Amino acid sequence: MPSLSIRIDLEADRRIGPGKIALLEQIREHGSISGGGRALEMSYKRAWDLVEEISDVCGKPVVASRTGGSRGGGATLTPFGEALIARYRQLERDVMKAAQPHLRALQRDMARR
Amino acid sequence: MPSLSIRIDLEADRRIGPGKIALLEQIREHGSISGGGRALEMSYKRAWDLVEEISDVCGKPVVASRTGGSRGGGATLTPFGEALIARYRQLERDVMKAAQPHLRALQRDMARR
Repeated sequence: MPSLSIRIDLEADRRIGPGKIALLEQIREHGSISGGGRALEMSYKRAWDLVEEISDVCGKPVVASRTGGSRGGGATLTPFGEALIARYRQLERDVMKAAQPHLRALQRDMARR
Repeated sequence: MPSLSIRIDLEADRRIGPGKIALLEQIREHGSISGGGRALEMSYKRAWDLVEEISDVCGKPVVASRTGGSRGGGATLTPFGEALIARYRQLERDVMKAAQPHLRALQRDMARR
């Protein structure tokens, strides 16, 4: 069945889509930017750049670094970063639900000879 | 306010989004592929390739060529092409409506210091 891809456009050429949200989720999961990037087969630099970009476009940080402790440095999401993930996933659920009947109808139209 | 971009994914790397739908609408408006492409500042070749791509991915033609007559050749949309536009625009309306409250909330979150 056809599926829908979405992206939130914040400004010209500044977007938040599934890739950036997945990265934030993996940073939360792994407790560090490098760990989160690794889980998505992304270089450390690429992961850092994306985190910077998200914070920059949103005008506030999404990740807080955590230094020291027995495990050394790491990163946690800021409350805004957490809220951003939750908001995106909720938007995605509602939007996909709204799209379903149309995608099904499109599939029917495409199959009809 | 943030906005939402959507795209319909039909197969891997085969998509229908706002650009292709706008082209079909302009072909309908101008009665030819070249006229529709021109309205979007697209080369004739690019417009043709996109029309081919849409028909190919959908498995049926979206444009029928019209030859002869006093105005020479031209193109009209097939019934399936018309249905595809209508379906896409309705999906878009419903999806944008579902996204609105979340985009507003995101904007509030981003503005909060």
